[in-house]
Amino acid sequence: MALFGLIEYKDASPEVRAVYDDIMATRKTDWINNFWKALAHDPVTLKRTWEDIKQIMGPGALDPLTKEMIYLAISISNGCAYCSASHGVAAKGKGMTKEMFAELLAIVGMANQTNKLADGYRVPVDEVFQNLF
Amino acid sequence: MALFGLIEYKDASPEVRAVYDDIMATRKTDWINNFWKALAHDPVTLKRTWEDIKQIMGPGALDPLTKEMIYLAISISNGCAYCSASHGVAAKGKGMTKEMFAELLAIVGMANQTNKLADGYRVPVDEVFQNLF
Amino acid sequence: MALFGLIEYKDASPEVRAVYDDIMATRKTDWINNFWKALAHDPVTLKRTWEDIKQIMGPGALDPLTKEMIYLAISISNGCAYCSASHGVAAKGKGMTKEMFAELLAIVGMANQTNKLADGYRVPVDEVFQNLF
Amino acid sequence: MALFGLIEYKDASPEVRAVYDDIMATRKTDWINNFWKALAHDPVTLKRTWEDIKQIMGPGALDPLTKEMIYLAISISNGCAYCSASHGVAAKGKGMTKEMFAELLAIVGMANQTNKLADGYRVPVDEVFQNLF
Amino acid sequence: MALFGLIEYKDASPEVRAVYDDIMATRKTDWINNFWKALAHDPVTLKRTWEDIKQIMGPGALDPLTKEMIYLAISISNGCAYCSASHGVAAKGKGMTKEMFAELLAIVGMANQTNKLADGYRVPVDEVFQNLF
Amino acid sequence: MALFGLIEYKDASPEVRAVYDDIMATRKTDWINNFWKALAHDPVTLKRTWEDIKQIMGPGALDPLTKEMIYLAISISNGCAYCSASHGVAAKGKGMTKEMFAELLAIVGMANQTNKLADGYRVPVDEVFQNLF
Repeated sequence: MALFGLIEYKDASPEVRAVYDDIMATRKTDWINNFWKALAHDPVTLKRTWEDIKQIMGPGALDPLTKEMIYLAISISNGCAYCSASHGVAAKGKGMTKEMFAELLAIVGMANQTNKLADGYRVPVDEVFQNLF
Repeated sequence: MALFGLIEYKDASPEVRAVYDDIMATRKTDWINNFWKALAHDPVTLKRTWEDIKQIMGPGALDPLTKEMIYLAISISNGCAYCSASHGVAAKGKGMTKEMFAELLAIVGMANQTNKLADGYRVPVDEVFQNLF
Repeated sequence: MALFGLIEYKDASPEVRAVYDDIMATRKTDWINNFWKALAHDPVTLKRTWEDIKQIMGPGALDPLTKEMIYLAISISNGCAYCSASHGVAAKGKGMTKEMFAELLAIVGMANQTNKLADGYRVPVDEVFQNLF
Repeated sequence: MALFGLIEYKDASPEVRAVYDDIMATRKTDWINNFWKALAHDPVTLKRTWEDIKQIMGPGALDPLTKEMIYLAISISNGCAYCSASHGVAAKGKGMTKEMFAELLAIVGMANQTNKLADGYRVPVDEVFQNLF
Repeated sequence: MALFGLIEYKDASPEVRAVYDDIMATRKTDWINNFWKALAHDPVTLKRTWEDIKQIMGPGALDPLTKEMIYLAISISNGCAYCSASHGVAAKGKGMTKEMFAELLAIVGMANQTNKLADGYRVPVDEVFQNLF
Repeated sequence: MALFGLIEYKDASPEVRAVYDDIMATRKTDWINNFWKALAHDPVTLKRTWEDIKQIMGPGALDPLTKEMIYLAISISNGCAYCSASHGVAAKGKGMTKEMFAELLAIVGMANQTNKLADGYRVPVDEVFQNLF
């Protein structure tokens, strides 16, 4: 159960409802997932977090599916069950197939392995890798 | 400095050279980056790791750029300086622009934030998120 | 269920009871929480861990509430469900309100975000930040 | 060196300068630390991150020193060198003494230890710990 | 429940069965644990992961029990419930007693503590520790 | 440089010297490594940490080399450069060969990979793995 329970739309304050309305309008859905209903106990954090997500996951240089898959990959790597489940479904909704998910997961696993090998062998960064842009 | 030093091609055993050759042929380059030169002290791990990477990062359901960016995102999230540098350059070589990198980084940061919020508020997984496929 | 079960006072050896007695006396309570009952299978670790906690969380330069909130923040950040629950209640018992908890959680989330941004952008430590005292 | 270099005030765009001005006004200082100068390459992330920090670390239920110490504790626990250095100095500026820092660090270490013990022994959450408020 | 369900031997494709057969032959058992049945949805990852594990955990310079205990220690430290359970039983099957497990767990906890203390105090590596071999 | 500098024996208080003396006597060496010299700024933490380590790493059910290798594996997995270096040399001093180290590192990498795969595929714990002893 959520730490403080989940705040449904009908029980929400006007400021919380305003965020819920914007979430539904932005996502073109008619429901609110539990993450927001749990955060609604702290309306300031609810609003800030939603506006951040909306900005970061909105139109940009990366396409929406790639964004969701990066979010999903981090969530799995961090072991966040809720975020892995919600961003998994979001990524699927934007086109992620089962095959793409399996490859994503293989990369998450492999990266976690080589991250440790690189650290363990104390590999110095190649000259040519030192500047990215 | 690498823990055991870096093994250059000219000093490598035939089995290590065979891996180096395959890396260069696969990547169409004429040099080997430090990660492999450090792993070469354990030829079995060198070969296994290379073959794994080659398989995972090879053609599949995800395009090569997306694969590199997922690898990069995990490496940054895990704080692996070497992997962040090398996969950053690899992703750039496959088309990642500075704007795309900035968005990737913003997502890594945001995911790390909401992963903690979801756990901290003990948000239960929505019924509709429980099955992915 | 705990890995080896939980050892109740009535079933405990004299050395385990001595630790339980000290926990109850120090905390002015008449019960023992599961963490200690699980550790009691290894009386040496039980005693060492309790004495460490007692020393670290005892009177010092930081007030008891601040200590509990730091402990809680780390536990949430690490995703330890048991420790988040137990130190949450302990912090509440020392004065943490729901508003304080919400702010603590917001800071945990934000720190996890900027930790990744600082690493991702490879921000060099400012000269003026290099020495703390 | 920062990944994309550091953007100084004199070289900054008007939108970046506006954030820098707000940072200096809010913190009552006349300089900008490297974190913001590195983020300035992505003005949208710069502005969002600053506004988030300003809101989260601003006046609230927790006093400013406690907020900084929680931020610092997480940063140390996550191994973020930059954040540990900058929030260490910030906490000191708000009253953290060397003794308080040593206690904070002891708690960070202890929490990381018991987090693993609780997980390792699979300790079930006590009934009385299941609800926080 | 596993994300995509578990693939039993009787429902498996020939390539999956070939891996299952090798697992059972190598481990001299007549059953397959859930990890492999879950991975079987991605036969390429199933085969690669099994062959990696078989190579890494096979005969070498470290004895089988030590290998299992290192695997177990990492799994507990990372909070992977499945891996902690499966490698715990595997280690027990190779000779790990309850006393050995308790010591292993104490080391995992202590290492997590001192890792943070060493980072927090920014301890420079002693000259004599800089080279391992 | 260490956060507060390193306290040498000649500059140490009697209580710090007592710990240093015990470290040298226990380890049969005539020098103190930097970790303790850094912790000496907090004599209470110095004494507690040393006594914990002495107890945990002392004679028990696991042999000294296995203990050191578990400590080392966790330290590498956590990315603690100091601890990886110091426990690497300690393990070598107790018999770890280069081949053993390479295998240890391969296991650390593999465990980090499969930990993520098991979580990502949400593998349920097999009935037979649920109880360890």
